[in-house]
Amino acid sequence: MFEFQLHAKNNRARMGVFTTPHGDLLTPVFAPVGTQATVKTLTPEQLREINATLVLSNTYHLYLRPGDELVRDLGGLHKFMQWGRPMLTDSGGFQVFSLAQTRTIDDDGVTFKSHIDGSTHRFTPEKSIAIQENLGADIIMAFDECSDPNDHAYTKLAMERTHRWAERSLEAQTRSDQALFGIVQGGVQADLRADSARFIAALDTSGIAIGGLSVGETKEEMHAMLDVVTPLLPENKPRYLMGVGTPEDLINGVLRGIDIFDCVLPTRLARHHSAFSPEGRLNMMNASFARDERPIDETCDCYTCQTFTRAYIRHLIVAKELLAGTLVSIHNLRALIRLMEQIRVYISEGIFEEKAPLLLGQWSNNAKRR
Amino acid sequence: MFEFQLHAKNNRARMGVFTTPHGDLLTPVFAPVGTQATVKTLTPEQLREINATLVLSNTYHLYLRPGDELVRDLGGLHKFMQWGRPMLTDSGGFQVFSLAQTRTIDDDGVTFKSHIDGSTHRFTPEKSIAIQENLGADIIMAFDECSDPNDHAYTKLAMERTHRWAERSLEAQTRSDQALFGIVQGGVQADLRADSARFIAALDTSGIAIGGLSVGETKEEMHAMLDVVTPLLPENKPRYLMGVGTPEDLINGVLRGIDIFDCVLPTRLARHHSAFSPEGRLNMMNASFARDERPIDETCDCYTCQTFTRAYIRHLIVAKELLAGTLVSIHNLRALIRLMEQIRVYISEGIFEEKAPLLLGQWSNNAKRR
Repeated sequence: MFEFQLHAKNNRARMGVFTTPHGDLLTPVFAPVGTQATVKTLTPEQLREINATLVLSNTYHLYLRPGDELVRDLGGLHKFMQWGRPMLTDSGGFQVFSLAQTRTIDDDGVTFKSHIDGSTHRFTPEKSIAIQENLGADIIMAFDECSDPNDHAYTKLAMERTHRWAERSLEAQTRSDQALFGIVQGGVQADLRADSARFIAALDTSGIAIGGLSVGETKEEMHAMLDVVTPLLPENKPRYLMGVGTPEDLINGVLRGIDIFDCVLPTRLARHHSAFSPEGRLNMMNASFARDERPIDETCDCYTCQTFTRAYIRHLIVAKELLAGTLVSIHNLRALIRLMEQIRVYISEGIFEEKAPLLLGQWSNNAKRR
Repeated sequence: MFEFQLHAKNNRARMGVFTTPHGDLLTPVFAPVGTQATVKTLTPEQLREINATLVLSNTYHLYLRPGDELVRDLGGLHKFMQWGRPMLTDSGGFQVFSLAQTRTIDDDGVTFKSHIDGSTHRFTPEKSIAIQENLGADIIMAFDECSDPNDHAYTKLAMERTHRWAERSLEAQTRSDQALFGIVQGGVQADLRADSARFIAALDTSGIAIGGLSVGETKEEMHAMLDVVTPLLPENKPRYLMGVGTPEDLINGVLRGIDIFDCVLPTRLARHHSAFSPEGRLNMMNASFARDERPIDETCDCYTCQTFTRAYIRHLIVAKELLAGTLVSIHNLRALIRLMEQIRVYISEGIFEEKAPLLLGQWSNNAKRR
């Protein structure tokens, strides 16, 4: 069921098709994030219009609210949020470590308090898989520990725990219609990343995720880790770089053999009035846009750019109108999805490596984090 | 240009077509309110999908932000907000009296302070028309004073001022492609309402608005005032009951000869989780909906009801997701627009008076104000 066919390669960059129960996924692909079973401010119809093909949702959030058993009883996440195309859920690990309060980790799992009401909960690999089976995404993740990347001793310990948890996650899986991915950890330590890549690559998973990056390390460190990891991974499994990122990160990731990306950045930036454009990130509240009759990006084919002026979008922002968040989200997501469409064409034509510097030049102004 | 053709009558209820520069408007019609050049949380595309035909925007708000001259310079309100169908602007009078700070009224106009920044501004009939000409809606309003309806002496004074302002508004008009409506005032005083109806009816306007209702008076008082006013109005001009209202108010208004309505209620209720339904207004946050797989209204043809369960909408509300406001706004507006479509069919079939009690019964639970 989870065949991954490579259609073209340019050095390490790959263009392929991952077959899922909810349709074929062309890779490389960028997945908008629908944390709480909704990509913030957008309808599923609007997501289809920007050609989103894969949507990520968060296990930690949905477990707490509305509850994974409720989602299961109502027919699963696809039906609940009316998204008929492929979906991916994370393991909850990252959120437990970054959002939950007063968590305690042991070799068996993690006990934590909900960020919503302080109630106590426990995730183990078995629990994470059970929740993800209730949610029913096409692609699910092994439970992992995402640790402080700079502490070698602790990172090694967390990585080894992640490896045992990956084995337990595989054991725990009962559904055959979900592609389980193991997660490579190891912080910014090249030796640990290599160990982790070899370990996870040897497991019988449908794909391989790379976690613990884009969490504060430098771009050079991220690239160095990808340069260590992807050459050690099998060709015939899709590779997912978790929580990345900016347009520049996507281009650099594909160059290093990544197939799947997700990030809250485009929608989060949109709600803070920041729009991707070839001129760099635009602060749409800027007074210079008050009478600007151009779209955000004259080269963009999204509803927002095909319909509205910068002047109107600025007005909505200044007037605190919620439509601003919707319109800029449509544009920012479409910008990344369109970038990936362009990259797929370049790879299939064998010219991605040649075109990559141009793309990086176009998008480099959008790389800075706010 | 502003022909109003009556196609059918059932006693006082009328079905007609008002011709505007942006297309024919079938009446009776309910207009969603786009206060700041946007119907809150909805794209123009979503408004077209629910068959909205007329959208209202507010002169006071747009004058302050982004400024009517800016809107004019960018091609007018239709182009600015990308709404290609008919639009209506109010005169700013009601907002000046209800929103602005420390206003002083004299026979020439009103001086007020902006609710946004406290800056001082002045509206006169001439200024209101100039602003509305800059905005460029198809239907514009004479400047009026909306006073405390229960003080007979002051209401008479305000009404007489409104009449002089209506004459001045007509004088001030320079564009021939905008239908100017005079506004009948007179509070809840039958004698004043009759005087005002006769005065405004005698002016050379393209339509007649009825202001100063739905501002705190009882339903019986509103109906009594309509019963005084509409029989005194010419048949061949559309009649617009400003700021009304609930489903029940619309039915009762049409029964009394009203052709045009607008109200913020459907979108405001939606943002406060309240949905129109044949069961009455539903508080969509109610725990009883947590596992309810039905749509808000099983008889509704809107995107929300055709796509999502009450359980999902409740989840979005509990999780504080903005999409909830969008989805319930789509439904609430569609409910009123569909009601008007149904009423037009009934009038054209000559059965509206016979069907009205049934419609009132269906919608009476939705009448209460929050």
